[in-house]
Amino acid sequence: MIRPGIHLKLRRIGIDTFKENVAYLHRDCPVYHTEGFQALAKVEINSVSDHQQVLAVLNVVNDEKIMAIDELGLSEQAFIQLGLYEGDMVCIAQAVPPESLDAVHRKIAGERLNESDFLSIIRDVVANRYSRMEMSAFLVACSESGMEREELLYLTEAMVKTGEKLDWGEPLVVDKHCIGGIPGNRTTMLVVPIIAAHGMLIPKTSSRAITSPSGTADTMETLARVDLDLNNLREIVRHERGCLAWGGRARLAPADDILISVERPLSLDSPGQMVSSILSKKVAAGATHLLIDIPVGPTAKVHRMNDALRLRKLFEYVGDRLGLHLEVVITNGEQPIGRGIGPALEARDVIKVLENDPEAPSDLREKALRLAGRILEFDPDVRGGHGYAIARDILETGRAMAKMQAIIAAQGENKDPPKLGELIMEVTAPESGFVTEIDNLQMARIARLAGAPMDKGAGVDLLKKLGDRVEEGESLYRIHAEFPSDFDFAQEQTRKDIGFRIGDKPAAPNYFPPL
Amino acid sequence: MIRPGIHLKLRRIGIDTFKENVAYLHRDCPVYHTEGFQALAKVEINSVSDHQQVLAVLNVVNDEKIMAIDELGLSEQAFIQLGLYEGDMVCIAQAVPPESLDAVHRKIAGERLNESDFLSIIRDVVANRYSRMEMSAFLVACSESGMEREELLYLTEAMVKTGEKLDWGEPLVVDKHCIGGIPGNRTTMLVVPIIAAHGMLIPKTSSRAITSPSGTADTMETLARVDLDLNNLREIVRHERGCLAWGGRARLAPADDILISVERPLSLDSPGQMVSSILSKKVAAGATHLLIDIPVGPTAKVHRMNDALRLRKLFEYVGDRLGLHLEVVITNGEQPIGRGIGPALEARDVIKVLENDPEAPSDLREKALRLAGRILEFDPDVRGGHGYAIARDILETGRAMAKMQAIIAAQGENKDPPKLGELIMEVTAPESGFVTEIDNLQMARIARLAGAPMDKGAGVDLLKKLGDRVEEGESLYRIHAEFPSDFDFAQEQTRKDIGFRIGDKPAAPNYFPPL
Repeated sequence: MIRPGIHLKLRRIGIDTFKENVAYLHRDCPVYHTEGFQALAKVEINSVSDHQQVLAVLNVVNDEKIMAIDELGLSEQAFIQLGLYEGDMVCIAQAVPPESLDAVHRKIAGERLNESDFLSIIRDVVANRYSRMEMSAFLVACSESGMEREELLYLTEAMVKTGEKLDWGEPLVVDKHCIGGIPGNRTTMLVVPIIAAHGMLIPKTSSRAITSPSGTADTMETLARVDLDLNNLREIVRHERGCLAWGGRARLAPADDILISVERPLSLDSPGQMVSSILSKKVAAGATHLLIDIPVGPTAKVHRMNDALRLRKLFEYVGDRLGLHLEVVITNGEQPIGRGIGPALEARDVIKVLENDPEAPSDLREKALRLAGRILEFDPDVRGGHGYAIARDILETGRAMAKMQAIIAAQGENKDPPKLGELIMEVTAPESGFVTEIDNLQMARIARLAGAPMDKGAGVDLLKKLGDRVEEGESLYRIHAEFPSDFDFAQEQTRKDIGFRIGDKPAAPNYFPPL
Repeated sequence: MIRPGIHLKLRRIGIDTFKENVAYLHRDCPVYHTEGFQALAKVEINSVSDHQQVLAVLNVVNDEKIMAIDELGLSEQAFIQLGLYEGDMVCIAQAVPPESLDAVHRKIAGERLNESDFLSIIRDVVANRYSRMEMSAFLVACSESGMEREELLYLTEAMVKTGEKLDWGEPLVVDKHCIGGIPGNRTTMLVVPIIAAHGMLIPKTSSRAITSPSGTADTMETLARVDLDLNNLREIVRHERGCLAWGGRARLAPADDILISVERPLSLDSPGQMVSSILSKKVAAGATHLLIDIPVGPTAKVHRMNDALRLRKLFEYVGDRLGLHLEVVITNGEQPIGRGIGPALEARDVIKVLENDPEAPSDLREKALRLAGRILEFDPDVRGGHGYAIARDILETGRAMAKMQAIIAAQGENKDPPKLGELIMEVTAPESGFVTEIDNLQMARIARLAGAPMDKGAGVDLLKKLGDRVEEGESLYRIHAEFPSDFDFAQEQTRKDIGFRIGDKPAAPNYFPPL
């Protein structure tokens, strides 16, 4: 086939426009005038002689140094997506709006959408037929009370169907996930070696920090390589029964990544979005059994027990319908877990727990054992209530440490582990009393300003935790930074708010259901 | 003041990104790495030595031909907005999200917003602090049933407050507006000369077509210059009491233009958006008395009388609270008005009416007289019910034509008026009977495909209207095009659907309240 219309020479424009494809057309290009393109028009670029097509937003170029009149430029991603060579002939036309936008309009008008509506929307999203503006419209229409749980199921299924799905060839593939928001909460790096040492399959992939001072992938990276391709990962998991890798490589539930690129800058974070994002990724990753951790606390993501229970039901409803064996635990999210906040500091805590060091943070150890215990009980051979004791046994006998070392060796040990930042400041108690509050958000902010997670040795080292007795002038925590400007920013932040509250007597403990 | 941080040389990048500001940073620029910018981050660019600031979305450049490592590029609009010279020193930082986004999140969660919420949102929109994604979120949260009419008032007031406002120095400044959707409906070009001839002040500005085959500005342009600056326009209005100009020059209710640039591609067109858009522009243009025309019909913008009544009340509520003297008429929108669809064809109809030509389309004449009559009654000296007769008198005695000629001369006559497109095709009745339906949308589509409004002589000339008796093979309408490719597209469209339905007997007329 040869397409009609004006043919233009394809050119790769060295501009990275991230998730939004951009096409560049010269102001004096005849096609720009005859076709009457509108500002911000969505256009489709087609190969003249073939079926390749890409959709993009149109920008108009006034400068011949960037591109010539008879050329059609594409931003980096759009060029790669089209899959042609520079100089190939293409033509450009107004893009037909994706048909599924009709369903988005019905959603905006308050209608319920059905399974095929969600599938067609998510297919178009994955095919890059939606602009960010259109995705924003869809997400807002679906957010908060806008979506029934049945619709949430359809959305999640559509996100799974439109990507690849891993198959581990075993009936029991376990995974865990924490909804996040608690600094220092690195239980995954303890749970994985315990579970793998027991022999259950736990091919764990984690994200890097986006708004937090460290993600599991960032912390693990101080010990070993985490950027593994899928073959490599399969090999490691076959040998070790587990891994601690970065999850950014596989094209699992690609709709999730695209939607997140809009949700994040908009700070959209509704329960429905959380559930569909987490469960689509886990199902696509081949998990059969999943433990979800919902920390609750005044500065956690979920503030009230009632909201946590509502979120739990939503996870359970969608998880069950997807055929996952899913359990949800609601945990204490009143303060950071462990002592370190930031990659190297958190890795130090993890290793201390694995070494059964008496100085190891007991809250991190205890929470990891509880979570691991619950996961062990997914094993039909483990009697209900016995998981915790088995996990503790695996940890205390050094088998967890041995497994961690094997995983580190398999992934590739980091021979040059980061040192803690050498710019150090101690933040002290303004008065004597008891620690009654530690603000997760403020502690995360201080650690990020100090340089975490980019500077692996930067962060905050907590010296006191909730309920501890302190004297005026005694150190509450220590800031580590690598660069003076970051160090200044972090210090400045502590002058606004140290993140700790001191009271006359320890606050009454809140009740959390036992794990 | 001299700002801290890395200083970069400002460069104007010859790329037109329309309403979205884009900043370009070289991939190897040190600031890109130390600041840890995220994909799609919003950034602020500040003058090093002064207070100028602009907000933009970040793109990353891999090509030294586009810009150097020590430079900071801005797209055309962003460069102009910042108002500095190339080579001036600037610095870049992550933009703080606009504070008003908090109100948007409350709106998404279903809360009612108050006056100051809307003002702060619209202020940030006008200051370009919102990305299109964020505007989309705001608009969807406000659309359909999401907004109380009190909130609509606040939104409209905020849109007026954040722009310039014209003052004509007279107590009675009239305006008219049709919500659109009816091809050929060029009553404005008759109403303005009638009203101005009577001596009332009617400084009318109109838009160009965006999705229709012609806007009043496009049609008027076939007769006279319409792109007038504000001084010129004031001068003309002072002499002639009226004008027929394009409204794109003044910075009236700038928020409206920005929001429309998001609403349009999203096809968001809720009653609230219509009311706030129209009324903010009219109040900013200095109107004191306004007549709104809402055509109703199966292929009009408003399909049912009930919806038209609801829309009328919304206009009345907001208009009254804004201190406008506002009246709404609901008119018959079952078919196109007049015969011509497309700039030159519509201008021909208008001139025929002004000339009192017996061949002039009677529906266009009658509707214009009714509307003009209602506007004349805004004059305290005109007795209720006498407006129509006065309008007819002004038209029949040639005073309307004389006034139109004076306005054309004042604005600058088009000495080279467009000829009708010479590629002509007649579309005929497939069977004998009566015209029972004419589809506004399909007729508009055919006229646009034929080349309107870009090709002034292109469009559709209706030979039959609703209720007319036709024989099989008799012509229903004539397509005019200037270029063969457009001509083909238009013909192809008529093969899908001619836009006319023929029945055994004329359809029963629908009742419309007399104007």
